Amino acid sequence: MRAITFNSPGDASVLHLEERVIPSPGSHEVLIRVIAAGVNRPDIFQRKGRYPAPSGIVQDIPGLEVSGVIESTGVSVSRWQSGQEVCALVAGGGYAEYVTAHEGCCLPVPKGISTRDAAALPEALFTVWHNVFQRGGLKAGQNIFIYGGSGGIGSMAIQLSRLSGAIPFTMTGSVEKAAFCSSLGVEKVCNSNHVKLIEDPGENSMDVILDCLGGDYIESNLTILKPDGRLVFINAMDGRRPELDIMKVMQKRLFITGSTLRSRSYEFKSTLAKDILDHAYPLLEDSRFKNMVHHVFPLEEASEAHRLMESRDFFGKIILKM
Amino acid sequence: MRAITFNSPGDASVLHLEERVIPSPGSHEVLIRVIAAGVNRPDIFQRKGRYPAPSGIVQDIPGLEVSGVIESTGVSVSRWQSGQEVCALVAGGGYAEYVTAHEGCCLPVPKGISTRDAAALPEALFTVWHNVFQRGGLKAGQNIFIYGGSGGIGSMAIQLSRLSGAIPFTMTGSVEKAAFCSSLGVEKVCNSNHVKLIEDPGENSMDVILDCLGGDYIESNLTILKPDGRLVFINAMDGRRPELDIMKVMQKRLFITGSTLRSRSYEFKSTLAKDILDHAYPLLEDSRFKNMVHHVFPLEEASEAHRLMESRDFFGKIILKM
Repeated sequence: MRAITFNSPGDASVLHLEERVIPSPGSHEVLIRVIAAGVNRPDIFQRKGRYPAPSGIVQDIPGLEVSGVIESTGVSVSRWQSGQEVCALVAGGGYAEYVTAHEGCCLPVPKGISTRDAAALPEALFTVWHNVFQRGGLKAGQNIFIYGGSGGIGSMAIQLSRLSGAIPFTMTGSVEKAAFCSSLGVEKVCNSNHVKLIEDPGENSMDVILDCLGGDYIESNLTILKPDGRLVFINAMDGRRPELDIMKVMQKRLFITGSTLRSRSYEFKSTLAKDILDHAYPLLEDSRFKNMVHHVFPLEEASEAHRLMESRDFFGKIILKM
Repeated sequence: MRAITFNSPGDASVLHLEERVIPSPGSHEVLIRVIAAGVNRPDIFQRKGRYPAPSGIVQDIPGLEVSGVIESTGVSVSRWQSGQEVCALVAGGGYAEYVTAHEGCCLPVPKGISTRDAAALPEALFTVWHNVFQRGGLKAGQNIFIYGGSGGIGSMAIQLSRLSGAIPFTMTGSVEKAAFCSSLGVEKVCNSNHVKLIEDPGENSMDVILDCLGGDYIESNLTILKPDGRLVFINAMDGRRPELDIMKVMQKRLFITGSTLRSRSYEFKSTLAKDILDHAYPLLEDSRFKNMVHHVFPLEEASEAHRLMESRDFFGKIILKM
């Protein structure tokens, strides 16, 4: 099979096509003939050597999510059969014509979304459902502030929040990105200066914040949260060790939490997938849900896809098609 | 009535006895003939001028908790009658022969505890029940690390944790305090050096931490918590703005929260009191629950009581008797 790999860490040009042996599905695994693979920021960290894949899994082929057709099933697989179309979280190896996935990490292709474009869903869907709705406890009628609303996770968070009856706010770096976020249903795009955030959206205005920045934004986060509000970290791109104002946490009775998806057990992901199917799929299959795929590259142009993501000059999701 | 007050902020000697008019209970309030009043750290901050009482309440008589007998009831009081013995959270004014309390902030004197000694319960009980069990979610079989185990809040937290089937750990500053904590049922008294805390009790060992210190202890807190563990702040005596390691919060999926009791609404305190009566009283009334009162001063010696608390050379609770 054709696969994208790299010999040593470096810039986007280290990615190249190679011939590899098609992997075999193990116990509780399916083999997927990949139609498309999503491109995610951790793929870039992995390429740069900064985010090594957990041991024991595909080491040198990036790619954490795919869509495609089940080619075969390993022993003890009960939920899937050959020929079914799925999208899946994978433990790496997604930039290839075939990849194995744990049966619990596969989801059916939602109605109204093409099999190809479903490759853009798993990472954002698992991350947003867990962090915004389970960990963040977002409810209908509540306000949520979403950092980076124009990216893959952000555009999923805006749409699922809005379609579930909550009111999403965001902050982005350009007029074009602001317009994109508005098209997804964001209530308001706020000032991107972290001090001015305190004026707009204002003190005590948010029930939940989904934060991928960290750093000094924590100060405005604690201010714009309502009492009993929840701050959920999914990354800390702007700084990993900001000062925490403990008295403000106490006075407003805030909750600060966060999570990473990749390190979780298959059991966790499988339970999360079930909850997503029951509660997020009706939102994804709503006719108002907008396709998140805005940039499609052929597999062999993976370097170009990485360059686009690194430029930050993109909207929604970037995928590679086989 | 006799009451302790002060004319201007200062050291313990500013406290003195004065004659005051007995207050009248307002709507939903009871008038309590005070038998004893608990001494708490916020009383000292108030005396020093650093922790002004919320506006609209007794300004110059300290005292946040009392026990005594209901002398009369204001309009719309449905739960209590004259002559009943209670302990109560009050909004200030406890260092006096009479004080008013919201009816929802009163609790009956638990069986097995004298009316006088019940003055030591309300602050610790409301604080520990809310922060350890409601906010911290401590369950039977789980480990909890309690800072300052020999103080009023600490000794309540150790006892309720142990009697509810959880396993309390603490850290204290002296051999005598360690022995006192052991007598209350603590599993182990750990090294008081915040770096060594990581060795003892060890990484990933605690489900819940009740923290009154803050400061650099946050680093060892995030390390000794198990994945999904909860860090609950009730004070930050060692530092209010430590650095927060966001990646560690995410990797271990920790929850950081906290609260203050005094600023909460009567509605909240009333609901909390009901939960305490249903779930904490069976533990308080267990024959293994040890009296928390270790130092009793006559009202007129309030200065001495404050000096003892400021020396930190005390165990459990300090009360003033009328």
